[in-house]
Amino acid sequence: MQERINKLIKLMAEFTMPGIALNPGPTLNYLTGLNFHLMERPTVLLITAGGQTALVLPALETGKLADIPIKIEAFTYSDDPETRPEAFFRAADYLGLGSTDLGVEATRMRYLEMMYLGDVLGEAGFLDASACLAGLRMTKDETEIKKMHQAAIIAQDALLETLKGIKAGMTEKEVANQLIIQLLRAGSGPELSFSPIVAFGENSANPHSTPSDRRLKEGDLLLVDWGASYEGYLSDITRAFTFGEVDPELLKIGEIVLRANQAGRAAGRAGIEAGSVDRASRAVIEEAGYGEAFTHRTGHGLGMEAHEEPYIFENNALVLEPGMTFTVEPGIYLAGKGGVRIEDNVVVTETGLETLTDLPRQVLPLESFMGL
Amino acid sequence: MQERINKLIKLMAEFTMPGIALNPGPTLNYLTGLNFHLMERPTVLLITAGGQTALVLPALETGKLADIPIKIEAFTYSDDPETRPEAFFRAADYLGLGSTDLGVEATRMRYLEMMYLGDVLGEAGFLDASACLAGLRMTKDETEIKKMHQAAIIAQDALLETLKGIKAGMTEKEVANQLIIQLLRAGSGPELSFSPIVAFGENSANPHSTPSDRRLKEGDLLLVDWGASYEGYLSDITRAFTFGEVDPELLKIGEIVLRANQAGRAAGRAGIEAGSVDRASRAVIEEAGYGEAFTHRTGHGLGMEAHEEPYIFENNALVLEPGMTFTVEPGIYLAGKGGVRIEDNVVVTETGLETLTDLPRQVLPLESFMGL
Repeated sequence: MQERINKLIKLMAEFTMPGIALNPGPTLNYLTGLNFHLMERPTVLLITAGGQTALVLPALETGKLADIPIKIEAFTYSDDPETRPEAFFRAADYLGLGSTDLGVEATRMRYLEMMYLGDVLGEAGFLDASACLAGLRMTKDETEIKKMHQAAIIAQDALLETLKGIKAGMTEKEVANQLIIQLLRAGSGPELSFSPIVAFGENSANPHSTPSDRRLKEGDLLLVDWGASYEGYLSDITRAFTFGEVDPELLKIGEIVLRANQAGRAAGRAGIEAGSVDRASRAVIEEAGYGEAFTHRTGHGLGMEAHEEPYIFENNALVLEPGMTFTVEPGIYLAGKGGVRIEDNVVVTETGLETLTDLPRQVLPLESFMGL
Repeated sequence: MQERINKLIKLMAEFTMPGIALNPGPTLNYLTGLNFHLMERPTVLLITAGGQTALVLPALETGKLADIPIKIEAFTYSDDPETRPEAFFRAADYLGLGSTDLGVEATRMRYLEMMYLGDVLGEAGFLDASACLAGLRMTKDETEIKKMHQAAIIAQDALLETLKGIKAGMTEKEVANQLIIQLLRAGSGPELSFSPIVAFGENSANPHSTPSDRRLKEGDLLLVDWGASYEGYLSDITRAFTFGEVDPELLKIGEIVLRANQAGRAAGRAGIEAGSVDRASRAVIEEAGYGEAFTHRTGHGLGMEAHEEPYIFENNALVLEPGMTFTVEPGIYLAGKGGVRIEDNVVVTETGLETLTDLPRQVLPLESFMGL
């Protein structure tokens, strides 16, 4: 833990970030081992450029501090919201804040915490620390990659178990619920990467479809986008299947997306731009005449968060480094007809991308997995 | 939906709120029926005092707009973050923002969305709209209360099913996973109120304990705090059980907490202060000499969010109104020994509090539920 805080202090120096304020989320967990939930009670970890730390938190959460290997000065308040400002003032006083701009995680820090912090910052304000903090968790060590691999194995096992039980007439919601049950049985942590997407037929044309009461019928494509968690690390996979005889164009786009997935995974390695992975996948789909139907980026970073740095979009000039982990998930979406996305999880190495997910990628008949 | 937006417009006038900016969460869902997740791509609904609306969202989410009964002008951007500012500018231009302060939900609005909004607001800034927005969802109509009741029934059925399978030697994590499986089987939506708390023995003394590898053994208290979701509405219940012969003091605090729960539920009704419910529960525990060991407020609002207005703390002068829904959950926590909390979900009526949860509240032997 202290090593990780030291790494942050170095990054703060590099980005001339005078202070950092973190609220609950993976970064706070990564640095301290502490697990808080975002709720109406503000919890904020403050870190100065000199490495001093202070934690403002609800009094009833202090029990959690007993379990951590580092010392953090705690400033607590009660369940009466009027006791909160004083806790923030005491923490700021302890750290000697007052004219220190605080860097925050743009996707985490809320107006709630900023109200209380704003009152103790005097002339100072907030800075976007996303670039500074991205460097903290973006490259994973061997232990972290092992956990991600285990999260992939759990997710794959759970899907195979779920596919066995699928029958015509089941709803998307029923299949999604079965998949969650199998994820937990296979060893996933209770907080999944995200709520699984199960989309039948025309619904698969919406990349962010929500499971509905739509029933599975002959001639449907079936798309599943799901993930497991293992010791705080996530997987995020997508596969598509046919049920009975589907529109031949869906099989055709399935083959194109498979080639795009392979091209993206073949293109990446340390030293090249993140964008080049996107461009390699995109080129396959564009050459096949479906460029307009590939409506999103090729992937996103994956680790303690389901979406994190590095993002794999066309113009991303970020240079890949060994240990970075992300998804490769090209897709083609035909409104009213259906869509195919094939998503794998990869790790950057010196020579290429190592793929953590190994379930067959082709769009195969669901029947070959059912009732096994 | 239009009715709900009209209600918001009235509240905005009452609180002199010139504009509102909402990011994904229950309030956006309540007003539009739209379901977005908080992620690295900003999604913001803007509403002016005149009732004009604009939605900034990722292009790949536009499919969701087809399903809603109201017309919202959409401003989209692509997966290249550089295309985001223009979408925010177009939305602001459409609404004629520029000098309009925007009210935000303090517990939802993030630095990310505020960065993009800040660039289009000119001299204007942000306001805390929590008080204005609290009035929007705080009192529930009959349909909403029916959904909360159903969420309570699902949660209770799932717990009874889970208790049947508990055996000595099981870990907290295993019991929690079984409970999630049973919640889904009983008909809960896949997004639970929160990850269940299952705490054995000394772990029950931490009100926000996280399920661990601690195994169940004779002489343990077993505390479960869990909930289900049903059509977007939540339940949130806590019960405690004994396994074998437990420390007599735990039985004693169980009886005191039960009386405190009853006193709190008996104290509430329309027209009195929210704080009086807390004071009624707290008085029982204080008179029994355990005031210091009741470390939190008596409850919190419950509905589309697991924690929302009204909060039931000692000094809350908010006057209860028919249709408000919240938890009553006094507790006593003895470090190193264990804790008991008994939590019910209630609705305010003219004459009292109607309780939606009816599972036995006494601390009963787990054995009487096992292997039924």
